[in-house]
Amino acid sequence: MKKLLNDPANAVVESVEGFVAAHADIVEAHDDPIFGTRVGGAVQGKVGLVSGGGSGHEPLHAGFVGVGMLSAAVPGAVFTSPTPDQITPALLAADGGAGVLAIVKNYTGDVLNFETAVELAEAEGVEVATVVTDDDVAVQDSLYTAGRRGVAGTVCVEKIAGAAAERGDDLAAVAAVASKVNANVRTMGVALTACTVPHVGKPSFDLPDDEIEIGIGIHGEPGRRRIPLAPADEITQMLLDPVADDLGLTSGEEVLLLVNGMGGTPLSELYVVYRQARKLLEGRGAVVVRSLVGNYVTSLEMQGASVTVLRLDAELTELWDAPVHTAALRW
Amino acid sequence: MKKLLNDPANAVVESVEGFVAAHADIVEAHDDPIFGTRVGGAVQGKVGLVSGGGSGHEPLHAGFVGVGMLSAAVPGAVFTSPTPDQITPALLAADGGAGVLAIVKNYTGDVLNFETAVELAEAEGVEVATVVTDDDVAVQDSLYTAGRRGVAGTVCVEKIAGAAAERGDDLAAVAAVASKVNANVRTMGVALTACTVPHVGKPSFDLPDDEIEIGIGIHGEPGRRRIPLAPADEITQMLLDPVADDLGLTSGEEVLLLVNGMGGTPLSELYVVYRQARKLLEGRGAVVVRSLVGNYVTSLEMQGASVTVLRLDAELTELWDAPVHTAALRW
Repeated sequence: MKKLLNDPANAVVESVEGFVAAHADIVEAHDDPIFGTRVGGAVQGKVGLVSGGGSGHEPLHAGFVGVGMLSAAVPGAVFTSPTPDQITPALLAADGGAGVLAIVKNYTGDVLNFETAVELAEAEGVEVATVVTDDDVAVQDSLYTAGRRGVAGTVCVEKIAGAAAERGDDLAAVAAVASKVNANVRTMGVALTACTVPHVGKPSFDLPDDEIEIGIGIHGEPGRRRIPLAPADEITQMLLDPVADDLGLTSGEEVLLLVNGMGGTPLSELYVVYRQARKLLEGRGAVVVRSLVGNYVTSLEMQGASVTVLRLDAELTELWDAPVHTAALRW
Repeated sequence: MKKLLNDPANAVVESVEGFVAAHADIVEAHDDPIFGTRVGGAVQGKVGLVSGGGSGHEPLHAGFVGVGMLSAAVPGAVFTSPTPDQITPALLAADGGAGVLAIVKNYTGDVLNFETAVELAEAEGVEVATVVTDDDVAVQDSLYTAGRRGVAGTVCVEKIAGAAAERGDDLAAVAAVASKVNANVRTMGVALTACTVPHVGKPSFDLPDDEIEIGIGIHGEPGRRRIPLAPADEITQMLLDPVADDLGLTSGEEVLLLVNGMGGTPLSELYVVYRQARKLLEGRGAVVVRSLVGNYVTSLEMQGASVTVLRLDAELTELWDAPVHTAALRW
């Protein structure tokens, strides 16, 4: 295992320390239990947004804390759900009197721990709504999931719901737009190489030098099938077609195209994937009006990428375009 | 070789096509010869900035084309200098009547080809000044270099000189501030793994599973020494100390700290490096007032990182903070 780490047991804490020091104008950390909130705390009268999950997917979620996106983020150990005793104080800290939306990727541990935390927060008088993201079309059930997995589409949910909260929508409206995004976003990924969880010390799975895994999850969970390494355009089609089919895209629809790197793939390769995904969408008559290319929902140092398509309408486009000021997304 | 590519011979062109399609609001491409310019072309009366170099370091340089930074970028083949016939039209396109600053990383091929291109552009009546960046403290001469190599500090030069051009400084002033940044910025990097040039198909060098290369160049050129894999804090000290010593940092000075990923390193690890580099700087009495952490000057899928320190003063801080709107840097 070759990583820039000290004791693997301290990897998450030391990374969070660095993150908070580098972005002290945006995020502040709370210790014991650990979670991060926007500097200045909850905004009175506005809905707060909280997300979280296992670490190893950076910049998700702490990189999306800031004006126009999340109010707080809760990091678990690597690929491990955060605990209710971490999540509950984050929910309380995010409440500015208008309630809190919890955005939870669909993994059994995350869902259960957020449910418990939400009950505890509600017992303290905070109104909480929950939206579970499940945008991965690759598999119906998975190693850690009943139902589809929540993956890169979660960034779209967090950005757009964050903009709705920022403009002053009430909790029901923010939850509704988050659900609308989740209902209109689909993702599928590919792994070229496995990743290694620091405290495990060996790759999460074996992938021969001449094979790739189509439909990989963001924790290295099995996908749809293994195939021999193929040209990028062919791989991209294997990702884009199921996404567009499942979304039921019809000609003339406007979409956002997100090509997400898994952590170890050069940006230049992500643009090669973007180029072909866009061509395929245009071949279906879709119109790509917004784009995002980069490492947003990663799997440690895994080489690979995912393709996400979000069906847009005027409201979603306006909310996507609204200002955002976080460590990882800013405009 | 596992990459998301089609024919390796088309890797750069296809990546540029994807890049320009994704960022059509910021950059437009010119074919035959290939280079990229800001949408809308040169700004009349303002100094233009042009940079370029071998591909494989993305987002450098095309990711830094846009308002407040570069006017044009010229991509060579992977790890290969662009040719004068590419650079010359980029220099001409960047001229809004106030002249052009060429920012060139110190590699023999880049320097020679830019020199030729500058002569050709001057013959067309464009005034051009050149600043060569050489921030890498690792080695005095190198595989492709007489003198020190230009590496991640180039981002600081491009950002700050771009802001000076944007506020209307004349060519001599923009060149002076670019030189000032270069004189006050130092970098050193480490490789955990080698990278593979697509058209070569095998790793650029051999690095055993239990060794790392301290002082690596951004093309995999040899650094100072190979050592056994060590804890991140120790590695960080081997990078930060030579940088701070060479810069002659004294107590109380304000600095920008850039921790740059080589392409294949997870963001979480870069923050572990940032944490320790910042501590070491603070231990020297320096004050870290600005930070940047991420993949900015990469070496394909290499795992590793570099640490850059820029000595700031009021002018440089103000120019760093000035608005920038590019694909890879935006605030």
